[in-house]
Amino acid sequence: MSKKEEQLGIKVKKTEDFSEWYNEVVLKAGLAEHSVIKGFMVVRPDGYAIWESIQNFFDSRIKKIGVRNAYFPLLIPESFFKKESEHAEGFAPELAWIEQKEEGEKYAIRPTSETIMYDSYSRWIRSWRDLPLRINNWCNVLRWEVKQTKLFLRTREFLWQEGHCVYETEEECEKETRLYLEEYRRVSEELLAIPVLLGEKTESERFAGAKRTYTLEALMPDGKALQMGTSHNLGQNFAKAFKIKFLGKDEKQHIPWQNSWGISTRMIGALVMVHSDDKGLVLPPKVAETQIVIVPIFKENNKEEILKKSNEIKNKLKTVYSHLDDRGGYTPGWKYNEWELKGIPLRMEIGPKDIEKGQVVLVRRDNGEKEFVREDQIEKRAKALLDEIQDSLFIKAKKFLESNICGAKDWKEFISQVKNKKLVKAFFCGETKCEDEIKDKTNGVTSRLIPFDQPQEKGKCIHCNKESKFLVVFGKAY
Amino acid sequence: MSKKEEQLGIKVKKTEDFSEWYNEVVLKAGLAEHSVIKGFMVVRPDGYAIWESIQNFFDSRIKKIGVRNAYFPLLIPESFFKKESEHAEGFAPELAWIEQKEEGEKYAIRPTSETIMYDSYSRWIRSWRDLPLRINNWCNVLRWEVKQTKLFLRTREFLWQEGHCVYETEEECEKETRLYLEEYRRVSEELLAIPVLLGEKTESERFAGAKRTYTLEALMPDGKALQMGTSHNLGQNFAKAFKIKFLGKDEKQHIPWQNSWGISTRMIGALVMVHSDDKGLVLPPKVAETQIVIVPIFKENNKEEILKKSNEIKNKLKTVYSHLDDRGGYTPGWKYNEWELKGIPLRMEIGPKDIEKGQVVLVRRDNGEKEFVREDQIEKRAKALLDEIQDSLFIKAKKFLESNICGAKDWKEFISQVKNKKLVKAFFCGETKCEDEIKDKTNGVTSRLIPFDQPQEKGKCIHCNKESKFLVVFGKAY
Repeated sequence: MSKKEEQLGIKVKKTEDFSEWYNEVVLKAGLAEHSVIKGFMVVRPDGYAIWESIQNFFDSRIKKIGVRNAYFPLLIPESFFKKESEHAEGFAPELAWIEQKEEGEKYAIRPTSETIMYDSYSRWIRSWRDLPLRINNWCNVLRWEVKQTKLFLRTREFLWQEGHCVYETEEECEKETRLYLEEYRRVSEELLAIPVLLGEKTESERFAGAKRTYTLEALMPDGKALQMGTSHNLGQNFAKAFKIKFLGKDEKQHIPWQNSWGISTRMIGALVMVHSDDKGLVLPPKVAETQIVIVPIFKENNKEEILKKSNEIKNKLKTVYSHLDDRGGYTPGWKYNEWELKGIPLRMEIGPKDIEKGQVVLVRRDNGEKEFVREDQIEKRAKALLDEIQDSLFIKAKKFLESNICGAKDWKEFISQVKNKKLVKAFFCGETKCEDEIKDKTNGVTSRLIPFDQPQEKGKCIHCNKESKFLVVFGKAY
Repeated sequence: MSKKEEQLGIKVKKTEDFSEWYNEVVLKAGLAEHSVIKGFMVVRPDGYAIWESIQNFFDSRIKKIGVRNAYFPLLIPESFFKKESEHAEGFAPELAWIEQKEEGEKYAIRPTSETIMYDSYSRWIRSWRDLPLRINNWCNVLRWEVKQTKLFLRTREFLWQEGHCVYETEEECEKETRLYLEEYRRVSEELLAIPVLLGEKTESERFAGAKRTYTLEALMPDGKALQMGTSHNLGQNFAKAFKIKFLGKDEKQHIPWQNSWGISTRMIGALVMVHSDDKGLVLPPKVAETQIVIVPIFKENNKEEILKKSNEIKNKLKTVYSHLDDRGGYTPGWKYNEWELKGIPLRMEIGPKDIEKGQVVLVRRDNGEKEFVREDQIEKRAKALLDEIQDSLFIKAKKFLESNICGAKDWKEFISQVKNKKLVKAFFCGETKCEDEIKDKTNGVTSRLIPFDQPQEKGKCIHCNKESKFLVVFGKAY
């Protein structure tokens, strides 16, 4: 990016035009850009580094559970979609077909890989000894959306991982379906510092072909919920459709149980929205490729001395990721702005007076707090500050989430709360028809999840007043 | 895979039917399988683990050079291909177009990403401060091959990395084009234990749109050369076509210099062919996800004691990747066969007599050598043996390569050497027409590379007898 462009900075305030502010942060922090192909995005190096950070964190976690990575074809035969009817119906409108055919068969670019993977599984699985089978695929998928696209949040192509496991028993399947959801919670809360609500989806929000869909939902600053990931208990639906069978310990043929689970580059969008501010991106330290940027303050007459000292300090930093911005031709102030725009958690300033006094200045990106640190304390203090920033971003977001969920005694209060951009916890009858009516009457409020944490008592549905089935969190969604 | 299938083992000898032997090893070691979609493959977990090993090795190397990863769209607009005419012509027959169009524009699945990336580059690059720009993309590409496909070696979709850099000067560009080739040499020789020849491609083998293509070529046991990777100096061809310009230090507009470079899952095919044997896969220890498999030898009456000891020994191994095969229902002999088929470099046998004597047995996969090792020496000895195996696989392959390259004084000797499946070093006029004639007369022998290491003197072209331009290595190729 040229100097001129970068100097522009973020022109729109987060509180004034959230959507435009988001676009500016993503573009100007250099995370992604719109492709010339409508609805597609280019993930730029600073955006891709966040994805790599998510990949590293999650990949090492699932490998410990026993998941192994593999790669399945980009294309899916038309006949495969048809094997599971709900699944076919769910994805049909979004498929991109290629022109080539083989023996009359059409091929679509994968929108998700259940069908192509389970075709292989039906050959790989023979006996209980082959189970559990736990496979994950890091790949690109394509869904030809007609809705307005938005960088990271809704693009026709996106990057994700899709895990697909097969189990002997229903219990084991259900247990692990929720285990992967818990792993997603860790990615979101421990790495990205984004608190989430965990629960199940209602019927109308369930994955096409699944028995149960579990979800983690985060609250964005504009009051909308964002689905961070889902884990589906597929039951035996796909196993039956793809004829996956195994010889049990009892020497009889059984149909196994399956789950599938995915998170995507969408998480990067949530990260931007939750933490960033009017100066640009704010990266939680655990995600940041560069955790500390060192900005030396020099003039021509002391440049050499100060750069030497800066290099010396940088080289001593062993446990934090640092970058020395030793470029000439830019003022320190200009550099501060640039690194703030890019969200680097800590800035270290080293000027002639600091060197005299044997100290440096550390400035936090999240709250702008400055402190002087003695040279022999830098690493220790920087590490402590990075931990504090990580914690404080999470706590701030957690407070926001908690103060924006409320209850509603009746439909009138429900309406007023959703108008106030709150997530509303309310009893619900569970009927898809009733949910559709709620959506119509509220300009798009839907059930986000049925929280795991349910009250003992039941009540009356907030909308239709029938006996409730469960407590649901309602809200608008991305 | 079921017990029954695995017991089959490799049925064809490497020396008898090399091609069929290769297919069996890939399939039975569980590295990959044919997809139901013609020409596509499923990379199974054991195959993907090799790819991850290549990724980890190479990714950390290029990051040190300053390359950053990014992700560009899967689809490429038709108009982009047309901007660089040689490039368009080179890839046209292999493109898969999707049915969707936007404003009359067709889109193809990327066969390589030069065009879509350089469109972005033309907006990103403004000044010399933005250079060098070094970006890499780990992704899938699709080329609708009509030739017979072969797992890993020639499939319509494959995984690769494509690096794309932009420089201020021709010198810098040329220097780094060769630097990435050198990095590929390290992947091949240091990680995969496959020796390679380095050099330049002749005009007829050059990448579509490139000024110069550098290559690394390995020799397979059937006498055919396999291109392991290429690094292209693109000169200014693409920069001109995509209007990439920068403001130089001299305040004038300049056209930058570019390279692109790639390696793919094809390398896994080479790995299989070079090292494996009639028992199955042989993995170089540095590539192996599991370096030592521990096979306890027990009966019902001593099972507990022996498994306890085996676990104890496994838990002490800190610097080698080990796996304890504690499955019941399989004999030790059956397990030996399975792990040999899967290519695990070292096997550790622990039986009751070994425990009595305070020792274990270590068996090398590459040459079957057995040795007894005292319990307190296991880790040290295992590490030494793994190093020895890595070295010895490389040395063996290197000897094979060296003993299968020869010279040829005249055309008659050339013909006889290529019939003997040798790579032949010979003087060559450099004319595409002459190269085509050589290919026709020899049933497919082509120039593999112009080695960097050229003799002082020139000679006469081995085929047309004109003044030679350079010494070339000729051979059949995958």
